Amino acid sequence: MSSRAFQDDYPDELSHCYGCGKHNPHGYRLKSYWAEDGRESVAHFMPQPYHTALPGFVYGGLIASLIDCHGTGTASAAAYRAAGREPGSLPALRFVTAALKVDFLAPTPLGVALELRGVPVEVKEKKVVVEITVSANGKVTAKGQVIAVRMPESMAP
Amino acid sequence: MSSRAFQDDYPDELSHCYGCGKHNPHGYRLKSYWAEDGRESVAHFMPQPYHTALPGFVYGGLIASLIDCHGTGTASAAAYRAAGREPGSLPALRFVTAALKVDFLAPTPLGVALELRGVPVEVKEKKVVVEITVSANGKVTAKGQVIAVRMPESMAP
Repeated sequence: MSSRAFQDDYPDELSHCYGCGKHNPHGYRLKSYWAEDGRESVAHFMPQPYHTALPGFVYGGLIASLIDCHGTGTASAAAYRAAGREPGSLPALRFVTAALKVDFLAPTPLGVALELRGVPVEVKEKKVVVEITVSANGKVTAKGQVIAVRMPESMAP
Repeated sequence: MSSRAFQDDYPDELSHCYGCGKHNPHGYRLKSYWAEDGRESVAHFMPQPYHTALPGFVYGGLIASLIDCHGTGTASAAAYRAAGREPGSLPALRFVTAALKVDFLAPTPLGVALELRGVPVEVKEKKVVVEITVSANGKVTAKGQVIAVRMPESMAP
Protein backbone atom coordinates (compact mmCIF):
# COMPACT_ATOMS: atom_id res chain seq x y z
CA MET A 1 0.00 0.00 0.00
CA SER A 2 1.37 3.41 -0.96
CA SER A 3 2.19 5.72 1.94
CA ARG A 4 0.57 8.63 0.14
CA ALA A 5 -3.22 8.82 0.21
CA PHE A 6 -5.30 9.88 -2.78
CA GLN A 7 -6.50 12.86 -0.77
CA ASP A 8 -2.92 13.95 -0.02
CA ASP A 9 -2.62 14.67 -3.72
CA TYR A 10 -5.65 16.99 -3.87
CA PRO A 11 -4.56 20.59 -4.49
CA ASP A 12 -4.56 22.71 -1.32
CA GLU A 13 -7.51 24.83 -2.47
CA LEU A 14 -9.61 21.69 -3.00
CA SER A 15 -8.74 20.06 0.33
CA HIS A 16 -11.39 21.42 2.70
CA CYS A 17 -13.93 18.64 2.52
CA TYR A 18 -15.35 17.71 5.92
CA GLY A 19 -15.12 14.06 4.96
CA CYS A 20 -11.62 13.92 3.54
CA GLY A 21 -9.93 17.32 3.34
CA LYS A 22 -6.46 17.54 4.86
CA HIS A 23 -7.16 21.22 5.57
CA ASN A 24 -10.41 20.65 7.49
CA PRO A 25 -9.41 20.29 11.15
CA HIS A 26 -13.02 19.57 12.18
CA GLY A 27 -13.60 16.74 9.75
CA TYR A 28 -12.90 13.06 9.27
CA ARG A 29 -9.78 13.39 7.08
CA LEU A 30 -10.42 10.04 5.46
CA LYS A 31 -7.38 8.59 3.68
CA SER A 32 -7.77 6.25 0.73
CA TYR A 33 -5.11 4.13 -0.95
CA TRP A 34 -4.74 1.47 -3.59
CA ALA A 35 -4.65 -1.96 -2.01
CA GLU A 36 -1.66 -4.12 -2.81
CA ASP A 37 -3.38 -5.76 -5.75
CA GLY A 38 -3.92 -2.32 -7.30
CA ARG A 39 -7.46 -3.30 -8.21
CA GLU A 40 -9.26 -2.17 -5.08
CA SER A 41 -8.93 0.98 -3.04
CA VAL A 42 -8.96 0.79 0.72
CA ALA A 43 -9.52 3.15 3.64
CA HIS A 44 -9.89 2.72 7.36
CA PHE A 45 -11.81 4.87 9.78
CA MET A 46 -12.37 4.71 13.52
CA PRO A 47 -15.75 6.18 14.46
CA GLN A 48 -15.97 8.24 17.63
CA PRO A 49 -18.16 7.01 20.50
CA TYR A 50 -20.71 9.73 19.71
CA HIS A 51 -21.13 8.65 16.07
CA THR A 52 -24.13 6.70 17.27
CA ALA A 53 -27.26 5.55 15.49
CA LEU A 54 -28.96 3.53 18.18
CA PRO A 55 -26.65 2.86 21.14
CA GLY A 56 -23.80 0.55 20.12
CA PHE A 57 -24.11 1.13 16.39
CA VAL A 58 -22.64 3.58 13.88
CA TYR A 59 -25.05 6.13 12.42
CA GLY A 60 -25.85 5.80 8.78
CA GLY A 61 -24.90 9.34 7.87
CA LEU A 62 -21.28 8.65 8.77
CA ILE A 63 -21.27 5.48 6.70
CA ALA A 64 -22.74 7.39 3.76
CA SER A 65 -20.12 10.14 4.20
CA LEU A 66 -17.24 7.68 4.22
CA ILE A 67 -18.57 5.90 1.13
CA ASP A 68 -18.99 9.26 -0.59
CA CYS A 69 -15.43 10.46 0.06
CA HIS A 70 -13.81 7.08 -0.56
CA GLY A 71 -15.74 7.04 -3.83
CA THR A 72 -14.61 10.45 -5.07
CA GLY A 73 -11.06 9.74 -3.93
CA THR A 74 -11.00 6.44 -5.77
CA ALA A 75 -12.51 8.18 -8.82
CA SER A 76 -9.68 10.71 -8.85
CA ALA A 77 -6.99 8.06 -8.47
CA ALA A 78 -8.56 5.88 -11.17
CA ALA A 79 -8.80 8.84 -13.53
CA TYR A 80 -5.11 9.70 -13.09
CA ARG A 81 -4.21 6.09 -13.69
CA ALA A 82 -6.42 5.82 -16.79
CA ALA A 83 -4.86 9.00 -18.18
CA GLY A 84 -1.35 7.71 -17.47
CA ARG A 85 -0.70 10.79 -15.38
CA GLU A 86 1.23 11.28 -12.14
CA PRO A 87 -1.20 11.46 -9.15
CA GLY A 88 -1.70 15.07 -8.13
CA SER A 89 -0.31 16.55 -11.35
CA LEU A 90 -2.13 19.62 -12.66
CA PRO A 91 -4.73 20.28 -13.89
CA ALA A 92 -6.26 18.40 -10.98
CA LEU A 93 -8.59 15.49 -11.70
CA ARG A 94 -10.95 16.27 -8.82
CA PHE A 95 -14.33 14.54 -8.73
CA VAL A 96 -17.59 15.32 -6.98
CA THR A 97 -20.56 13.06 -6.32
CA ALA A 98 -23.50 13.11 -8.70
CA ALA A 99 -25.31 10.20 -7.08
CA LEU A 100 -24.82 8.10 -3.98
CA LYS A 101 -26.52 4.85 -3.02
CA VAL A 102 -26.09 2.98 0.24
CA ASP A 103 -27.60 -0.35 1.23
CA PHE A 104 -27.40 -0.97 4.96
CA LEU A 105 -27.12 -4.73 5.19
CA ALA A 106 -26.64 -5.10 8.93
CA PRO A 107 -26.14 -2.83 11.93
CA THR A 108 -22.52 -1.55 12.01
CA PRO A 109 -21.03 -1.97 15.49
CA LEU A 110 -19.36 1.01 17.17
CA GLY A 111 -15.93 0.59 18.74
CA VAL A 112 -13.99 -1.01 15.90
CA ALA A 113 -12.22 0.45 12.87
CA LEU A 114 -14.27 0.30 9.69
CA GLU A 115 -12.71 -0.87 6.45
CA LEU A 116 -13.86 0.53 3.12
CA ARG A 117 -13.01 -1.20 -0.11
CA GLY A 118 -13.73 0.34 -3.49
CA VAL A 119 -13.64 -0.92 -7.04
CA PRO A 120 -13.85 1.52 -9.95
CA VAL A 121 -16.26 -0.33 -12.24
CA GLU A 122 -16.50 2.37 -14.90
CA VAL A 123 -13.78 4.90 -15.67
CA LYS A 124 -14.44 7.59 -18.24
CA GLU A 125 -12.81 10.98 -18.60
CA LYS A 126 -15.63 12.84 -16.87
CA LYS A 127 -17.42 10.09 -14.98
CA VAL A 128 -16.25 7.29 -12.72
CA VAL A 129 -18.47 4.76 -10.96
CA VAL A 130 -17.14 3.14 -7.79
CA GLU A 131 -18.66 0.21 -5.90
CA ILE A 132 -17.81 0.18 -2.22
CA THR A 133 -18.18 -2.11 0.76
CA VAL A 134 -17.94 -1.17 4.43
CA SER A 135 -16.83 -3.86 6.88
CA ALA A 136 -16.59 -4.10 10.63
CA ASN A 137 -14.85 -7.04 12.27
CA GLY A 138 -14.44 -8.57 8.82
CA LYS A 139 -18.17 -8.57 8.08
CA VAL A 140 -19.67 -6.40 5.35
CA THR A 141 -22.37 -4.23 6.92
CA ALA A 142 -23.02 -1.77 4.08
CA LYS A 143 -22.59 -1.57 0.33
CA GLY A 144 -22.55 1.60 -1.69
CA GLN A 145 -22.19 3.04 -5.14
CA VAL A 146 -20.80 6.45 -6.00
CA ILE A 147 -21.30 8.02 -9.40
CA ALA A 148 -18.55 10.62 -9.46
CA VAL A 149 -18.19 13.34 -12.08
CA ARG A 150 -15.39 15.79 -12.79
CA MET A 151 -15.73 18.87 -10.61
CA PRO A 152 -17.72 21.49 -12.51
CA GLU A 153 -16.08 24.86 -13.15
CA SER A 154 -18.83 26.47 -11.08
CA MET A 155 -17.40 24.84 -7.95
CA ALA A 156 -13.82 26.02 -8.48
CA PRO A 157 -12.68 28.29 -5.63
CA MET B 1 -46.70 23.23 12.07
CA SER B 2 -46.74 21.27 15.35
CA SER B 3 -44.32 22.54 17.99
CA ARG B 4 -43.29 18.98 18.79
CA ALA B 5 -40.81 17.33 16.43
CA PHE B 6 -41.07 13.69 15.37
CA GLN B 7 -37.73 13.09 17.06
CA ASP B 8 -38.99 14.58 20.35
CA ASP B 9 -41.31 11.59 20.52
CA TYR B 10 -38.56 8.99 20.20
CA PRO B 11 -38.11 7.09 23.48
CA ASP B 12 -35.12 8.29 25.50
CA GLU B 13 -33.15 5.08 24.96
CA LEU B 14 -33.53 5.45 21.17
CA SER B 15 -32.56 9.14 21.04
CA HIS B 16 -28.78 9.03 20.65
CA CYS B 17 -28.51 9.29 16.88
CA TYR B 18 -25.78 11.69 15.78
CA GLY B 19 -28.08 13.02 13.10
CA CYS B 20 -31.25 13.54 15.10
CA GLY B 21 -30.99 12.30 18.69
CA LYS B 22 -32.03 14.77 21.36
CA HIS B 23 -29.57 13.03 23.70
CA ASN B 24 -26.54 13.37 21.44
CA PRO B 25 -24.89 16.68 22.37
CA HIS B 26 -22.27 16.30 19.61
CA GLY B 27 -24.72 15.76 16.78
CA TYR B 28 -27.04 17.66 14.46
CA ARG B 29 -30.25 17.19 16.46
CA LEU B 30 -32.37 17.50 13.33
CA LYS B 31 -36.04 18.26 14.03
CA SER B 32 -38.75 17.16 11.60
CA TYR B 33 -42.41 18.18 11.56
CA TRP B 34 -45.49 17.80 9.45
CA ALA B 35 -45.96 20.80 7.21
CA GLU B 36 -49.28 22.61 7.50
CA ASP B 37 -50.84 20.60 4.71
CA GLY B 38 -50.05 17.41 6.66
CA ARG B 39 -48.89 15.77 3.47
CA GLU B 40 -45.24 16.72 3.55
CA SER B 41 -42.75 16.68 6.40
CA VAL B 42 -40.33 19.54 6.78
CA ALA B 43 -37.05 20.18 8.59
CA HIS B 44 -34.54 23.00 8.58
CA PHE B 45 -30.84 22.83 9.25
CA MET B 46 -28.09 25.42 9.30
CA PRO B 47 -24.75 23.89 8.30
CA GLN B 48 -21.65 25.03 10.14
CA PRO B 49 -18.92 26.88 8.21
CA TYR B 50 -16.70 23.77 8.41
CA HIS B 51 -19.31 21.48 6.80
CA THR B 52 -17.49 22.15 3.56
CA ALA B 53 -17.21 20.13 0.39
CA LEU B 54 -15.24 22.46 -1.82
CA PRO B 55 -14.99 25.96 -0.33
CA GLY B 56 -18.41 27.63 -0.31
CA PHE B 57 -20.42 24.45 -0.65
CA VAL B 58 -21.97 21.95 1.75
CA TYR B 59 -20.36 18.49 1.82
CA GLY B 60 -22.42 15.66 0.49
CA GLY B 61 -22.11 13.52 3.59
CA LEU B 62 -24.05 16.08 5.62
CA ILE B 63 -26.77 16.23 2.99
CA ALA B 64 -26.98 12.44 2.98
CA SER B 65 -27.16 12.42 6.80
CA LEU B 66 -29.98 14.95 6.91
CA ILE B 67 -31.94 13.06 4.26
CA ASP B 68 -31.41 9.84 6.19
CA CYS B 69 -32.66 11.20 9.52
CA HIS B 70 -35.50 13.20 8.01
CA GLY B 71 -36.51 10.01 6.23
CA THR B 72 -36.56 7.78 9.28
CA GLY B 73 -38.32 10.49 11.30
CA THR B 74 -40.97 10.90 8.64
CA ALA B 75 -41.31 7.12 8.46
CA SER B 76 -42.01 6.94 12.18
CA ALA B 77 -44.56 9.76 12.08
CA ALA B 78 -46.28 8.27 9.03
CA ALA B 79 -46.45 4.86 10.70
CA TYR B 80 -48.07 6.29 13.84
CA ARG B 81 -50.56 8.13 11.68
CA ALA B 82 -51.35 5.08 9.57
CA ALA B 83 -51.90 3.03 12.74
CA GLY B 84 -54.13 5.71 14.22
CA ARG B 85 -51.83 5.90 17.22
CA GLU B 86 -50.70 8.82 19.32
CA PRO B 87 -47.14 9.90 18.30
CA GLY B 88 -44.62 8.54 20.78
CA SER B 89 -46.99 5.97 22.30
CA LEU B 90 -45.42 2.62 23.17
CA PRO B 91 -44.36 0.25 21.74
CA ALA B 92 -42.27 2.75 19.78
CA LEU B 93 -42.54 2.76 16.00
CA ARG B 94 -38.85 3.48 15.44
CA PHE B 95 -37.43 3.03 11.93
CA VAL B 96 -33.92 2.53 10.61
CA THR B 97 -32.60 2.95 7.09
CA ALA B 98 -32.34 -0.07 4.84
CA ALA B 99 -31.40 1.89 1.73
CA LEU B 100 -30.52 5.49 0.98
CA LYS B 101 -30.21 7.19 -2.39
CA VAL B 102 -29.11 10.76 -3.00
CA ASP B 103 -28.94 12.62 -6.31
CA PHE B 104 -26.85 15.76 -6.06
CA LEU B 105 -28.48 18.05 -8.62
CA ALA B 106 -26.46 21.20 -8.02
CA PRO B 107 -23.82 22.41 -5.57
CA THR B 108 -25.46 23.33 -2.23
CA PRO B 109 -24.26 26.74 -1.02
CA LEU B 110 -22.90 27.10 2.52
CA GLY B 111 -24.17 29.93 4.73
CA VAL B 112 -27.93 29.51 4.41
CA ALA B 113 -30.40 27.27 6.19
CA LEU B 114 -31.32 24.14 4.26
CA GLU B 115 -34.92 23.04 3.94
CA LEU B 116 -35.81 19.36 3.72
CA ARG B 117 -39.22 18.26 2.53
CA GLY B 118 -40.34 14.65 2.69
CA VAL B 119 -43.27 12.74 1.29
CA PRO B 120 -44.04 9.22 2.50
CA VAL B 121 -44.84 7.51 -0.78
CA GLU B 122 -45.31 4.01 0.64
CA VAL B 123 -46.44 3.26 4.20
CA LYS B 124 -46.59 -0.34 5.35
CA GLU B 125 -46.39 -1.70 8.86
CA LYS B 126 -42.73 -2.63 8.63
CA LYS B 127 -41.54 -0.53 5.69
CA VAL B 128 -41.95 3.12 4.77
CA VAL B 129 -40.49 4.81 1.69
CA VAL B 130 -39.90 8.56 1.85
CA GLU B 131 -38.95 10.86 -1.03
CA ILE B 132 -37.05 13.95 0.07
CA THR B 133 -35.82 17.19 -1.43
CA VAL B 134 -33.14 19.50 -0.04
CA SER B 135 -33.35 23.18 -0.92
CA ALA B 136 -31.11 26.18 -0.37
CA ASN B 137 -32.35 29.67 -1.14
CA GLY B 138 -35.53 28.13 -2.53
CA LYS B 139 -33.70 25.99 -5.08
CA VAL B 140 -33.69 22.20 -4.89
CA THR B 141 -30.05 21.07 -4.84
CA ALA B 142 -30.48 17.40 -3.90
CA LYS B 143 -33.14 14.72 -4.01
CA GLY B 144 -33.16 11.59 -1.96
CA GLN B 145 -35.06 8.44 -1.17
CA VAL B 146 -35.03 6.58 2.13
CA ILE B 147 -36.30 3.03 2.45
CA ALA B 148 -36.96 2.78 6.16
CA VAL B 149 -37.76 -0.43 8.02
CA ARG B 150 -38.91 -1.07 11.56
CA MET B 151 -35.98 -1.24 13.93
CA PRO B 152 -34.88 -4.88 14.24
CA GLU B 153 -34.92 -6.46 17.69
CA SER B 154 -31.14 -6.95 17.37
CA MET B 155 -30.66 -3.17 17.60
CA ALA B 156 -32.72 -2.67 20.74
CA PRO B 157 -30.57 -1.29 23.58
